[in-house]
Amino acid sequence: MIRRIGGHTIGFEEMPSITGYASVVGKRESEGPLGKGFDKVIYDSYDGQDTYEQAESRFQYEAVGKVLEKAGIRANEIDYIFAGDLLNQCTGSSFGLIDYDIPYLGQYGACSTMAQGLIMASVFVESGAASAAACVTSSHFCSAERQYRFPMEYGGVRTPTAQWTVTGSGCCILKNAKKGPCISRATVGRIASLGVKDANNMGAAMAPAAAQTLKDYFDDTSTKPNDYDLILTGDLREVGSKLLYELLKREGIDISSNHNDCGLMIYDRKKQDVHSGGSGCGCSGSVLCSKILNDMTSGRLNNILFAATGALMSPTTCSQGADIPSIAHLVNVKNR
Amino acid sequence: MIRRIGGHTIGFEEMPSITGYASVVGKRESEGPLGKGFDKVIYDSYDGQDTYEQAESRFQYEAVGKVLEKAGIRANEIDYIFAGDLLNQCTGSSFGLIDYDIPYLGQYGACSTMAQGLIMASVFVESGAASAAACVTSSHFCSAERQYRFPMEYGGVRTPTAQWTVTGSGCCILKNAKKGPCISRATVGRIASLGVKDANNMGAAMAPAAAQTLKDYFDDTSTKPNDYDLILTGDLREVGSKLLYELLKREGIDISSNHNDCGLMIYDRKKQDVHSGGSGCGCSGSVLCSKILNDMTSGRLNNILFAATGALMSPTTCSQGADIPSIAHLVNVKNR
Repeated sequence: MIRRIGGHTIGFEEMPSITGYASVVGKRESEGPLGKGFDKVIYDSYDGQDTYEQAESRFQYEAVGKVLEKAGIRANEIDYIFAGDLLNQCTGSSFGLIDYDIPYLGQYGACSTMAQGLIMASVFVESGAASAAACVTSSHFCSAERQYRFPMEYGGVRTPTAQWTVTGSGCCILKNAKKGPCISRATVGRIASLGVKDANNMGAAMAPAAAQTLKDYFDDTSTKPNDYDLILTGDLREVGSKLLYELLKREGIDISSNHNDCGLMIYDRKKQDVHSGGSGCGCSGSVLCSKILNDMTSGRLNNILFAATGALMSPTTCSQGADIPSIAHLVNVKNR
Repeated sequence: MIRRIGGHTIGFEEMPSITGYASVVGKRESEGPLGKGFDKVIYDSYDGQDTYEQAESRFQYEAVGKVLEKAGIRANEIDYIFAGDLLNQCTGSSFGLIDYDIPYLGQYGACSTMAQGLIMASVFVESGAASAAACVTSSHFCSAERQYRFPMEYGGVRTPTAQWTVTGSGCCILKNAKKGPCISRATVGRIASLGVKDANNMGAAMAPAAAQTLKDYFDDTSTKPNDYDLILTGDLREVGSKLLYELLKREGIDISSNHNDCGLMIYDRKKQDVHSGGSGCGCSGSVLCSKILNDMTSGRLNNILFAATGALMSPTTCSQGADIPSIAHLVNVKNR
């Protein structure tokens, strides 16, 4: 049973369990502070393929393969896979997953897609539509650079607020298993914009959406930030996180003491030249499906909010001078 | 309650009702055989905007506005909107819907998105996650031409199998209302490819996915084509429909006597120069949300299968020489 809580939140009575998770990342991510927690490292940016786009598909393929292996199940035991990425027409997912032959539902929430996929999988499992559902996301530094910014060979100089797209993929399997980390509540975001137009400052563009969704959730559930061990955003990074604190403080909500951001966690920004930090569908996907779920499984974390943000623009809308609308979806993951 | 039927189909016990629907199309679509059934015609390709992309967003905005008006409800009574389009990063939807402030879940199934959205909305309504959910899709001839093929000004010559992207949008509202046309069963597709690489022959690329999903559905439900008043595909058009008949005949299934295709219905191909017929997210969206649901409401149709197909490629994957993976999602819409 799913019940509506307040205006924007839903609660899952059975609480679908995350019965498997896996992450696959590139070389740079493996050299960061979370390096040891990833399940597989692919050192070749092309992963033996001809193009970066094909390589990104391989990352998704590998992440799903790894999660099936870790969970000890076969692809045909997964009833649905909710997948998404940042490539035009989401081809990272469609080409990456074709061989698994799993009923496929493409999701587009930009960098919020991992949270969106978790919500979808939870609703499908809780309602009986699926006995097992998976969600997966990916991004790739090289395919993102040439699609969103410049060809790799151009060597464009980056602004200080620019992000570094994570090369990686994360995948979860959800089942009604009544054990381990599970999805307790979820809030689907509304599209927000405060008029930011700078595509090299996505953190600022996405902060209003994160603030709105977190406020919706706290209002709906009558809980407060300190009720949670961790409030984890996707890729707001330094600028966006500060803006988020500021926007929420205006509403009387202070998350600064237990907030962290996947984009800030994945790289060592003093040693690794990644400017404002990590971003991309694969950022929150790979961090959730390594360090975070490892910590939940070990009991170091027991009750967290995972709120991934996405910038719903395209290079076309940016070059046409439009502002950057954004969204944040949230799930409350807690141990039984 | 949602129950699983066979390997790939789900059944909705309460059967969410389509309590509202609306369609908005461009001039050429209004001049076709279904012209009188659309709710609104926008004669200006730019709809007063600066760009074709902004115009496409306006079509979605107008379709949602029209459905709210027809159903006599306000935007804040819709708990979720499932939306998608063909523009890179699905900006037709994100920019079109921002003003409604409805919790937003972006879907990407290419031209299958209307069927995917109906499945999502049905699962959310049936499970109690939503009391009302909407789904909307759009496409625009001019924004699609310049993104997928050539700039409009170039005037490229089209092959006989080339499609004509429909300028239009369709939107449905689903509620647990126990009346009128409702969603009884659904089959989510698996990604299929028989190796077609010709981006000017999408019908051929998508036929295998349609065949697979229809076969899954007939197997799972132990029903046969003649149990339905109409088997409606999205935009297979002439070439794809013939291939679909052929592929299904090999499985002992004959749908030729009660099959039609939105891409064949929307234009008068003798009088209108649209080559192989209509295509795009807005094709199946606008045809379903006009002629088809009008005929269901009047009782002329009572039990149909709506199987929309999508080609999950991008211009990048095509130029890299990849084949065109495709998918088909199916819903069984029937009158109570």
